[in-house]
Amino acid sequence: MDPGEKQYTTNFEIGGPLDGSAIGVVVESASEHLPLGATVRHRLGWREYAVVDETAVTVCDLAKAPAVSWLSSMGQTGFTAYAGLLPVGQLAEGETVLVTGAGGAVGSMVGQFARLLGAGRVVGSAGGVEKCAWLRDECGFDEVIDYRNTDFREVLPTAAPDGIDLFFDNVGGWQMVSAFHNMKIQGRISMCGAVSNFGSQQQPSLAELIEVVLRRITIRGFIVRDFEHLRPEFEERVSGWLASGQLVDRATIVDGIENAGAGLEGLLNGANLGKALVRLSD
Amino acid sequence: MDPGEKQYTTNFEIGGPLDGSAIGVVVESASEHLPLGATVRHRLGWREYAVVDETAVTVCDLAKAPAVSWLSSMGQTGFTAYAGLLPVGQLAEGETVLVTGAGGAVGSMVGQFARLLGAGRVVGSAGGVEKCAWLRDECGFDEVIDYRNTDFREVLPTAAPDGIDLFFDNVGGWQMVSAFHNMKIQGRISMCGAVSNFGSQQQPSLAELIEVVLRRITIRGFIVRDFEHLRPEFEERVSGWLASGQLVDRATIVDGIENAGAGLEGLLNGANLGKALVRLSD
Repeated sequence: MDPGEKQYTTNFEIGGPLDGSAIGVVVESASEHLPLGATVRHRLGWREYAVVDETAVTVCDLAKAPAVSWLSSMGQTGFTAYAGLLPVGQLAEGETVLVTGAGGAVGSMVGQFARLLGAGRVVGSAGGVEKCAWLRDECGFDEVIDYRNTDFREVLPTAAPDGIDLFFDNVGGWQMVSAFHNMKIQGRISMCGAVSNFGSQQQPSLAELIEVVLRRITIRGFIVRDFEHLRPEFEERVSGWLASGQLVDRATIVDGIENAGAGLEGLLNGANLGKALVRLSD
Repeated sequence: MDPGEKQYTTNFEIGGPLDGSAIGVVVESASEHLPLGATVRHRLGWREYAVVDETAVTVCDLAKAPAVSWLSSMGQTGFTAYAGLLPVGQLAEGETVLVTGAGGAVGSMVGQFARLLGAGRVVGSAGGVEKCAWLRDECGFDEVIDYRNTDFREVLPTAAPDGIDLFFDNVGGWQMVSAFHNMKIQGRISMCGAVSNFGSQQQPSLAELIEVVLRRITIRGFIVRDFEHLRPEFEERVSGWLASGQLVDRATIVDGIENAGAGLEGLLNGANLGKALVRLSD
């Protein structure tokens, strides 16, 4: 009955193992492309050993980026930021970019990539003093709004006084509504997720979309796997930024698979800074 | 504080006269372009006589379309449908189009234009048996859902079994949410208005937008005045369709300016069929 359902159903299954990107070292191999000792990435996550087909793994070139970066700035995280800014968001030189969830893995890349790609002003929102200071002082955001300790709706017009050209939305909810009211005419929204949906906060009404008509806004939902053809240019650019020290790539790492659940919780409740990773061994 | 506000404020003022498109006959003229007796269109509406600058009126060529059509299929109404389907919605041959508020002025043009422009399947929703029969039998819609007498959400998957490529939204609210769940992956939504916002019905949550991410939908809000450059091609096409009898252009006409308020009410509560007009004299 639902024509699109099969096409987007995730792999998550109640009672089944959780998946996600993981890196590890090849300890046994029947493939000439995967020598023993090579660092590789696969999508099976949440397990200590995995048996995978050679076509389902990527060899991580540690000369281009450190192992952890292959899961963050050089992985799906960074690639999501890149896709939302360029092919989806059509970022142009000098524009004002807003990103919500800026302290998270994707959000912190969005703000930094936007700056490195020539945005004129980068505004982020994050929860808590420490995260906001990190984004401003280390990641080079022009303005960071602490949505926990200030009134986002009230502060946003000052943080983006000329309006927002491109809004990269990770959060949805009331921050999205405030963003609507500060979009430039014909502004664009790259819609990546809506983590606020998972909370208990009452959600705004769909009627708020009337601003999308009045301001002639374009909203584009996207999923990074539609942009695989851009991965080589993405890796090229990001490894260059990492090498020159222009990109801050930080992770919140928990040790041991027994703590993976707590790490996931930190991702959802905003405790984490940057990419959430679980370390199984050195 | 609101960077876009000035750019979209309407001309409506409490206590001031209502405006809107009107046609009339020139009874006095100081312009050589506007001979006495010419039929002209202006935007001052809701008045029996108007004094206007020659640059603020359009001469209506009655050889191309009858006077009333210059306010409906050949006016802003038709032009809104055209803009939402082509430059905004990028309609392609063979696609499935859904339009809500199909019994209204814009909606009935959207469905008919879509068919004439080569859509493969045209689905509309309207309230009431009479409107639905008119759309199906006279306007050539493939499927019409009577949202008052059936469960729109339940019927839509049958009306558009392969999913919707292009959704022209006039209504917002719960019909919009049902449409989200029946969009094809990478489908497009032309968002023209949200008349359901004006009613008393409880609106759905903004969290429903998560479907826009999962299905990689593009939503584009638009206002017809951004597409003035397409008006000549629009008038050319529509006058051709009118001349060949392929287009049904129907209006609900109330007589006398004293009944104009009731006519507006009929537009908002769904009593009207086609374009709502007030006739001041023959």
